[in-house]
Amino acid sequence: MSELRRDSLTGRWVIIAAERAARPQDLLTDIHRTDAANDPFLEGHEDGTPPEILACRAEGTAPNTPGWRVRVVPNKFPALKPEGSLTTLANGVYDALEGVGAHEVIIECPQFETNMSRLPVDTVRDVLWVYRQRLIDLQRDPRLICPVIFKNQGAAAGASLAHSHSQLIVTPIIPPAIQGELDRALQFHNRQGRCLVCVMLEQELQSKNRVVLETANFVLCCPFASRFPFESWIMPKRHASHYETISPELLPELARVLGLALRNLEWALDDPAFNFVFRSAPFGEQGLAYAHWHIEILPRITGIAGFELGTGTFINSVAPEDSANILRKSTQRK
Amino acid sequence: MSELRRDSLTGRWVIIAAERAARPQDLLTDIHRTDAANDPFLEGHEDGTPPEILACRAEGTAPNTPGWRVRVVPNKFPALKPEGSLTTLANGVYDALEGVGAHEVIIECPQFETNMSRLPVDTVRDVLWVYRQRLIDLQRDPRLICPVIFKNQGAAAGASLAHSHSQLIVTPIIPPAIQGELDRALQFHNRQGRCLVCVMLEQELQSKNRVVLETANFVLCCPFASRFPFESWIMPKRHASHYETISPELLPELARVLGLALRNLEWALDDPAFNFVFRSAPFGEQGLAYAHWHIEILPRITGIAGFELGTGTFINSVAPEDSANILRKSTQRK
Repeated sequence: MSELRRDSLTGRWVIIAAERAARPQDLLTDIHRTDAANDPFLEGHEDGTPPEILACRAEGTAPNTPGWRVRVVPNKFPALKPEGSLTTLANGVYDALEGVGAHEVIIECPQFETNMSRLPVDTVRDVLWVYRQRLIDLQRDPRLICPVIFKNQGAAAGASLAHSHSQLIVTPIIPPAIQGELDRALQFHNRQGRCLVCVMLEQELQSKNRVVLETANFVLCCPFASRFPFESWIMPKRHASHYETISPELLPELARVLGLALRNLEWALDDPAFNFVFRSAPFGEQGLAYAHWHIEILPRITGIAGFELGTGTFINSVAPEDSANILRKSTQRK
Repeated sequence: MSELRRDSLTGRWVIIAAERAARPQDLLTDIHRTDAANDPFLEGHEDGTPPEILACRAEGTAPNTPGWRVRVVPNKFPALKPEGSLTTLANGVYDALEGVGAHEVIIECPQFETNMSRLPVDTVRDVLWVYRQRLIDLQRDPRLICPVIFKNQGAAAGASLAHSHSQLIVTPIIPPAIQGELDRALQFHNRQGRCLVCVMLEQELQSKNRVVLETANFVLCCPFASRFPFESWIMPKRHASHYETISPELLPELARVLGLALRNLEWALDDPAFNFVFRSAPFGEQGLAYAHWHIEILPRITGIAGFELGTGTFINSVAPEDSANILRKSTQRK
């Protein structure tokens, strides 16, 4: 059983998931070594993962057999598990909780493909639909509070398996970084009567110098205070706090924008490692006027060094306006 | 001139230092390519750096010539510069400042040596003395507020030059992550009448299961909520908020503990990349009862992935108690 520990000094939570590494020395071996032969995410290798939770699959095919397009399974080495109780494990000046939560893997395609950008738009749409369904399902467990959908592509972005996949962790607490964001957004709303992201969107669409792409319902844009070169965010134009409330009719358009954003990166940067993270409000109160879901895409071509780790302040050597310019050209090349 | 930009949503600051990369494509080249021949930090290559600010050097030798042991120079590609003014560059919903501050490089030895752990204890003492002197000097500039001493060793830790060196950045603002830590420490002090780190130290020295080494004046210990496998902190036993107030008599002992901590890592983990960061209270009010300076040593054998970037919550697959055990054995081998 893993443990959620809180650093008394910073308030930062850490998941101590010692079961993930059988021996500390195992951390040193190259874990990015899968190819098609030993790929547990391949169609036909369904017994290489825990039993599936959800799949988009051909009618008439049975769970955990071939015939699927997108497949969700519990993480074999979960950081958090549904079993256990949320008893506080106080330890003098320190706080801790049992590692209760959810940790799922979304396998994005049955064939061996390493890059989400190369998946057909229909597949990306299925992946986005699966994210939505999992959030709708998981919020029924009252212990699960804060859903985090994320993707690690490439070893430099923390991926341990090459086959294109994403992950979903739901924590039983709201991480302080996310709570801080919600608090700031609420303060802004209390002060100005509007959602901060809605105001940001308005400003970006007026100045246009950081906008990469605008579609009927979404904006792809390099944020003003980008942490990384070529960082870009996808934001829905219409205000919504929870990703899972997205209308399924919008998913093909969102899939197209996400696919484009990833292909832009590939063309501009020669297949970089990257992460993406969904920002969606914690489960519980729906329809928050101050929170606005979005997707943050974080290329990992530059390292995270001591200054960043020590201060939370990032040094970015490419102006977001220049990043947007280059990404916009990539978009137009298509 | 670089720019300090604040993300409206998170409050996070970002330094946009576009001059550091002449062209975005330059980010993609391997920057970890120095060897002795083209090493600007080598004795005799003094013209490869901006003129020195401070050096420990043999009597009778002139600045910017050979004869030095430790040398401080301005960073050739600074994230922040002393020139400029702190005018707010407001931009609609966004805040920004001119990139005013300090960014110095501490060259830790005249010969080509990549690992601080292999420097003699006297050299490490000189480095620690130089840190102290630079903080004492820099705080006379009222625009400089928050000093951050840090080290990137190894490409995976963000180092761009292999020759052993550390850096000092002083920001004109207090990064929210550091302000948050100060606020929490003050709240604890208001509630309990004691310094939080002093209480943590007491608890660690009682339980001993995370202590790696205790000397007369310092404790080396894996923190309860370690972000990384084999993370360890050096804390002075006697309460002090500002590193620069350390008595020079303690520097040889601190150098011995720091050297040991780094050699422990090398022996346990086969020469890992790592960062260290000094936590020392912002310039200004001295002798704070609630803040306690310390050094955080962060091995970089596991990646920082999307979950960590998205939530500030780290997944650590080695329990700090196990890390301490292994590091303690390394210490005893000596």
